[in-house]
Amino acid sequence: MAVAEPEPQCLPLEGAAMDAFLETTDSFLFDCDGVLWRGNRAIDGAPEAVNALRRRGKRVYFVTNNSRRTRDMYEQKLRRLGFDAGREQVFGSAFLAAQYLRQEASLPAAGKVFVIGDAAVCEELDEAGISYVRPVPEPVFGDIEQWSSLPLEPDVCAVLVAFDQHFSYIKLTKACSYLADPECLFLATNRDNAEMVAPGRVIPVTGSLLAAVETGAARQAIVLGKPSPFILRCIASVSPEGPLELQGTAIVGDRLDTDIYFGQTCGLRSVLSLSGVSSLDEAFENRRAGRLNMVPQYYVQGVADFLQSDC
Amino acid sequence: MAVAEPEPQCLPLEGAAMDAFLETTDSFLFDCDGVLWRGNRAIDGAPEAVNALRRRGKRVYFVTNNSRRTRDMYEQKLRRLGFDAGREQVFGSAFLAAQYLRQEASLPAAGKVFVIGDAAVCEELDEAGISYVRPVPEPVFGDIEQWSSLPLEPDVCAVLVAFDQHFSYIKLTKACSYLADPECLFLATNRDNAEMVAPGRVIPVTGSLLAAVETGAARQAIVLGKPSPFILRCIASVSPEGPLELQGTAIVGDRLDTDIYFGQTCGLRSVLSLSGVSSLDEAFENRRAGRLNMVPQYYVQGVADFLQSDC
Repeated sequence: MAVAEPEPQCLPLEGAAMDAFLETTDSFLFDCDGVLWRGNRAIDGAPEAVNALRRRGKRVYFVTNNSRRTRDMYEQKLRRLGFDAGREQVFGSAFLAAQYLRQEASLPAAGKVFVIGDAAVCEELDEAGISYVRPVPEPVFGDIEQWSSLPLEPDVCAVLVAFDQHFSYIKLTKACSYLADPECLFLATNRDNAEMVAPGRVIPVTGSLLAAVETGAARQAIVLGKPSPFILRCIASVSPEGPLELQGTAIVGDRLDTDIYFGQTCGLRSVLSLSGVSSLDEAFENRRAGRLNMVPQYYVQGVADFLQSDC
Repeated sequence: MAVAEPEPQCLPLEGAAMDAFLETTDSFLFDCDGVLWRGNRAIDGAPEAVNALRRRGKRVYFVTNNSRRTRDMYEQKLRRLGFDAGREQVFGSAFLAAQYLRQEASLPAAGKVFVIGDAAVCEELDEAGISYVRPVPEPVFGDIEQWSSLPLEPDVCAVLVAFDQHFSYIKLTKACSYLADPECLFLATNRDNAEMVAPGRVIPVTGSLLAAVETGAARQAIVLGKPSPFILRCIASVSPEGPLELQGTAIVGDRLDTDIYFGQTCGLRSVLSLSGVSSLDEAFENRRAGRLNMVPQYYVQGVADFLQSDC
């Protein structure tokens, strides 16, 4: 018999509640930027807290929508910032997209992926054995007659959109032409729209590029990063420890629309860390407005809070 | 007392119905591409039909969402294809955007417009006396640190998005940074997403670029082309013949989502020409689904149909 899920309460995780939470949570999925670090600096206490969880025998994974780093690059960054971590714990969206193509996409043998993305995406595709059209900066040329007959590769059977600083009208046009074939698979690493990097300074990211392709192609992409449940299938299939026990797994993130939405829709425990993008006010506003998939069960000021009751 | 609008019936305009329609319609707004011409060829009978309407004393305007031509350029094309037409009858979306900035935007004296667009947009802005940052191809450079501190012009108070073949990540980033200021006005020429130019060949147009900016900036643009009612205010203010009498004005277009939507939401007569993008099946499907703003009152096979009862 189905039991109604309780509404997420957005409770502070502290004192006895934290003790009970740590006791009953076996696995932690940590978002990275805004949770473990900001730019090139670890957030105070985060490495110590995450390392303590591992010492206590918890499974720890790093789950990030940023497509600009490979597993190896994330391992290096994690270690440099003091996290005791290995590449096999890292599930970045470039890796996730490559694994989706390898495990679930059933591409034809000669099929190639048209990539809007950077070198990290290519490395993950190489490692997964996926053929692709290597992205290069594409200078704009010609006019509408020539854009109507841009050279297209013959065996493209999928388009993958990730972050690409060389995103341009020509890349957009090629992607839309491939996607005019309804058999062409349409994937994206993530839908995060932008980062506010300083007051008045916005860096558009993958979701913004994806919106251009989706609008031009009049199609919606399958997104592999958070909040996609593919992450859990991918961890189950590539992790030596096998599938996660969902009710004992927590996602810890700073974004209500990706991290918390992922946790709530996949049946995980969800913890908002107030060290990044989303605020407690926004969480309560979502609750008032009935957007319960973007309300966390718990919140912490930062990942360092996981240390207090532990060591 | 308000009278309920009758549902649009999507009736064929022929025989006695056409006679009555021509008798009682004083003004015609013609969409261009797909209605008067395809590429560089006039659609059969269109010049003769439009010229006959003018001889009969009808007001005739050319209303197009394409931002890539100025009024002068449209006049040249119209005349070359056999239409007896002058620039003052042309309301293209680049002209409309420039007129909106001149008439309704209340920009500060030193204010400049950041333009994503091409030379036609610049010419229309020049003619309207609007200051702007001249768009140039912007090569991609640097990394996230540099994108966070791209040089921005100090007096930008509006962003205008039109078609730009040099659309790139750097232009997108600049636009989103200007738009981080909520006082910065956000305009677009149109929302048309793409053109299918041949089987499997799609040309993304302004709506696709706009989706990237809107997603990155997390804001919605004011659109000046169809279906915006600004067109009617603009015709009223710049045409020597003054405002249109709406109930005696017909929009003739090939797109349900722009032309017919414009007519239905602005209280005009609406005629779908089956010579372009939208089909009769799509019109009836909209009617079944209750999307009545995208159902025309009438349809014709082509603009040549307006000739049969006339001369």
